[in-house]
Amino acid sequence: MSVTAARGFRASGVVAGIKSNGRPDLALVVADRTAAAAGVFTRNQVQAAPVRLSREAVSDGRLRAVVLNSGGANACTGAAGAADAVAMAAAVSAAVGCPAHDVAVASTGLIGTRLPMRRELAGIGAAAGALGPAGGTAAATAIMTTDTVCKEASVQLAGAAAGVTIGGMAKGAGMLAPALATMLAVVTTDADVASADLDRALRTAVARTFDRVDVDGCMSTNDTVLLLASARSGVIVAPGTPAWPDFVTGLGEVCSGLANQLVDDAEGASKRIAIKVVGGADEEQAVAAARGVARSALLKCAIHGADPNWGRVLAALGTTGIAFDPEAVDITFNGEPVCAGGVAAGDPEAARAALAPREVTITIDLHAGASHATVLTTDLTAEYVHENSAYST
Amino acid sequence: MSVTAARGFRASGVVAGIKSNGRPDLALVVADRTAAAAGVFTRNQVQAAPVRLSREAVSDGRLRAVVLNSGGANACTGAAGAADAVAMAAAVSAAVGCPAHDVAVASTGLIGTRLPMRRELAGIGAAAGALGPAGGTAAATAIMTTDTVCKEASVQLAGAAAGVTIGGMAKGAGMLAPALATMLAVVTTDADVASADLDRALRTAVARTFDRVDVDGCMSTNDTVLLLASARSGVIVAPGTPAWPDFVTGLGEVCSGLANQLVDDAEGASKRIAIKVVGGADEEQAVAAARGVARSALLKCAIHGADPNWGRVLAALGTTGIAFDPEAVDITFNGEPVCAGGVAAGDPEAARAALAPREVTITIDLHAGASHATVLTTDLTAEYVHENSAYST
Repeated sequence: MSVTAARGFRASGVVAGIKSNGRPDLALVVADRTAAAAGVFTRNQVQAAPVRLSREAVSDGRLRAVVLNSGGANACTGAAGAADAVAMAAAVSAAVGCPAHDVAVASTGLIGTRLPMRRELAGIGAAAGALGPAGGTAAATAIMTTDTVCKEASVQLAGAAAGVTIGGMAKGAGMLAPALATMLAVVTTDADVASADLDRALRTAVARTFDRVDVDGCMSTNDTVLLLASARSGVIVAPGTPAWPDFVTGLGEVCSGLANQLVDDAEGASKRIAIKVVGGADEEQAVAAARGVARSALLKCAIHGADPNWGRVLAALGTTGIAFDPEAVDITFNGEPVCAGGVAAGDPEAARAALAPREVTITIDLHAGASHATVLTTDLTAEYVHENSAYST
Repeated sequence: MSVTAARGFRASGVVAGIKSNGRPDLALVVADRTAAAAGVFTRNQVQAAPVRLSREAVSDGRLRAVVLNSGGANACTGAAGAADAVAMAAAVSAAVGCPAHDVAVASTGLIGTRLPMRRELAGIGAAAGALGPAGGTAAATAIMTTDTVCKEASVQLAGAAAGVTIGGMAKGAGMLAPALATMLAVVTTDADVASADLDRALRTAVARTFDRVDVDGCMSTNDTVLLLASARSGVIVAPGTPAWPDFVTGLGEVCSGLANQLVDDAEGASKRIAIKVVGGADEEQAVAAARGVARSALLKCAIHGADPNWGRVLAALGTTGIAFDPEAVDITFNGEPVCAGGVAAGDPEAARAALAPREVTITIDLHAGASHATVLTTDLTAEYVHENSAYST
């Protein structure tokens, strides 16, 4: 269960023929009534037409439906592409019976080509007819591109927020970076939350989850995370109420669960690498350090080969622009010390053995304070090169 | 002819046994008399011991000798590594008969391990005995790491600077980035130039050549470019003299020649890619745009596969932080239009064919002004991953 785990939402996923391979490519998520909503979008200056439309649609804090397609990003498509996104929203509006400005649109796929609009619009009609309270997985499947598995997560809250469910779906795979990944995510909840509070909770959750995934440093033109709240649980959640911290934590868990799935399924990756910086002067420094290390192509190659080449960690740290003392830095690879006080430490063979598992945690202690942050990335592999050499063909 | 092309310099390269494969690994460049000198070093905050020593040595604008070794970077080696660099300079001082503070040291290889000092010091003695006016190529060979060919360049100036020769050597291969590559370069000239003017000329040349090579975004801890002037031609070169512009141009040609060789021989690369930004508001904007595009792993994969995926160029531009209008951008691949006014243009099959050659120029017109800049990079290949997965083993 995912985007339909919370009460008050239906979803569907259909084959609209946008992708040439005959796989599902159009998803619809619809709230039973207009829902409170919030959104976070790519910070790339080049923004796809659906991103611009959805940013505007969610600006009043309300949404009724979200339509998503894979098979084409509708980015760098000019005025015609903008009109295509508007037409998609209008078709959903007609099919669902809601104002067009309560419809968000999200697209993913190749940049620079127009969407096949006849198929899009027919697909929207078919998806509206297929909507159901168990349609979450079908929707999650229809937004996959080079993803190999569909991504879903949900939690049921306890304590003061008992009765509230939060669930979501996401797609990722390539172009996963700085702020958000090439990713579309829709999260729903049946909590009763004002849209301003939803926005605040979503920004907090995204900053510590999706924003800390950095697979290849490439930020997409289409990144979109939407959160809709139906209020159907009857549980009021607002800052200052006992339910608020539980809600924020639960939302973080769903986003974190989806973010982890994105990294696990990143294009061509053979390892999931957590760059954990501790002893940072502040959280901002810790994030900058972790992100800088996560972007080192040379380090990512070394980890791929289980090579305990810790010098590449220090060299990457030195280019991040953060203020730190290189001679104070300790580094461990899955707990094995490799560097202490800026020089070699531990047993290289033990460090090599520690790099064998699929999950690798590189812990960097800056000894500059008490803040910490973790950025998730992957190794760099020949398969990544292969997948991305032939994507548009 | 390279670092010994100019009069007044001798060089040598020997097998000191620092590398385990028995290849030459120690080079010496010595001026007949104390020379005017300038240096440019890595901007990585983590600086190898030889970088710190050489920065200090050149700070008085004078050098007599440069000793360089491959097989170990002497970086992240603490106080012991610093003492090793001092011992190398002292050994050269004794062998050549000059003050130790007139000796620069440069090292390249794996980070984090101590140099085998007994072999280093014996090698310095052997290299001093082998010094000769035709030793440039032997020196250039001894500084290679994963380089497949040695890199040399020289020019003989004409006009007002007739009689002046400028020559140099470099090593590169991996970790080529933001500012300088993992590169060591020594350039010599027989012009008579004051050290302050040498410094100015070198910074100008480096900023437009080595600094615009960006193979993998990874900046080394050891980058070093040194320039020595023997005055042996008797031609006085100073700002305001007719010879000055010829000298600056000639120095730029030698640095550019070496930088191009670095890119041509970058680890695992199958294509040399020039990212040429025109129509920039200013040179700084053009450089930032070109560098941002040069760092897109996704674009580098696409070019590897001769895939005319221009959307990745626009997506990368959008993350650079420069102010530009995405809907004004034109892009060509080796002259074939692929994007005009921010949307698709031209014939994709013609663009694919245009990407077949080893040399690819991606021209991006921002239509924001009259400035331009070019950054050189390479494609991203499975071979890069392979070479960098097993480098330290």
